[in-house]
Amino acid sequence: MSEIKFTYFNAKALGEVTRLLLKYAGIDFIDDRFPDEDWPKIKPNMPFGQVPALTVDGKTTNQSVAIARFAAKQAKHQSKVGSNDWEDLEIDAIVDTINDFRIKIQQYHYEPDAAIKEARKGPLFQETIPFYVKKFEEIAKKNNGYLAVGKLTWADFFFTGTIEYLNHMARVNLLEKCPNLQKVVQNVSSIPAVKAWLDVRPKTED
Amino acid sequence: MSEIKFTYFNAKALGEVTRLLLKYAGIDFIDDRFPDEDWPKIKPNMPFGQVPALTVDGKTTNQSVAIARFAAKQAKHQSKVGSNDWEDLEIDAIVDTINDFRIKIQQYHYEPDAAIKEARKGPLFQETIPFYVKKFEEIAKKNNGYLAVGKLTWADFFFTGTIEYLNHMARVNLLEKCPNLQKVVQNVSSIPAVKAWLDVRPKTED
Repeated sequence: MSEIKFTYFNAKALGEVTRLLLKYAGIDFIDDRFPDEDWPKIKPNMPFGQVPALTVDGKTTNQSVAIARFAAKQAKHQSKVGSNDWEDLEIDAIVDTINDFRIKIQQYHYEPDAAIKEARKGPLFQETIPFYVKKFEEIAKKNNGYLAVGKLTWADFFFTGTIEYLNHMARVNLLEKCPNLQKVVQNVSSIPAVKAWLDVRPKTED
Repeated sequence: MSEIKFTYFNAKALGEVTRLLLKYAGIDFIDDRFPDEDWPKIKPNMPFGQVPALTVDGKTTNQSVAIARFAAKQAKHQSKVGSNDWEDLEIDAIVDTINDFRIKIQQYHYEPDAAIKEARKGPLFQETIPFYVKKFEEIAKKNNGYLAVGKLTWADFFFTGTIEYLNHMARVNLLEKCPNLQKVVQNVSSIPAVKAWLDVRPKTED
């Protein structure tokens, strides 16, 4: 593959999963970060006005989950997709479920109306978060420290690359009482290529 | 593959894409529909309390988009996924974008608070819908009546299987001034196996 450019804010948020996967895959890419104030002039040139965006050989596409799946396939030495269609379905389903969970926390975090935000707080923290975290923890336990098909897949990278953003938005450590989900993060973070990236990546709040 | 069961409400909504793809693939499946009033007793047994759900050989998973992608891969005579990783990314990205569009219309349609619903109406109908429909139409034109990679893919099935639900929720014909998107729907609907299904499927409102 020729030049790969990954365009996003200077943030982990929806971008870090793909960065982790490209680093794991050992693929050189331009980590194209722009300051928040440049967004209005960048937005009209992005597909559907969205980032993250991936550009390969001059073609650009949006959609963070689709881009992460593509990045996962590029690790040719040990691709982190499934071994068959059903395994890929299991991986895709848990990834989309993590993404649903992210959207629910985000809808609370970015709500500009203080009264609406306050009204969402109870249901989010007393129902939605405990429900999802318990299910994810059960799945990680059943899969022995992984989130799908009993082995390391890009679903684990997806979770690891997203959890700091979720913790940041929820202002709690969501994994505090979840030893098996902590193991998921540890399994990804301890991979040498990933660890090397975690040590040198730009420090950002979200 | 042994027994396949697809569980959903008696509705097109988030289920019809997978039904179209399985019919296209010529795969026998149990079209497991339940009446709305049974949902409270079914929900606790579904993964993450969600449908549609797909059960294959006794294993069940949720997530409509992931299930549709799996169904697309099963058409072994002429699989409707991409020819390479980049093509799959293009298909996945447009599918996720159609899904984003669906969620935006849904957030309006199902809003229980009349004042909030009314406040969302203007932005949805004057900004969001025109923006997305124009972009989709441009993409369909560029791809000659398809939504990705210049040929029939499961993205076209995804659009065709979703558009009636979108029209139902928006209470307009979103494709009225979109000849190229009409062509997308026509390209899928005229496939004999699909047409045969459209003729016999249960008639439902959404």
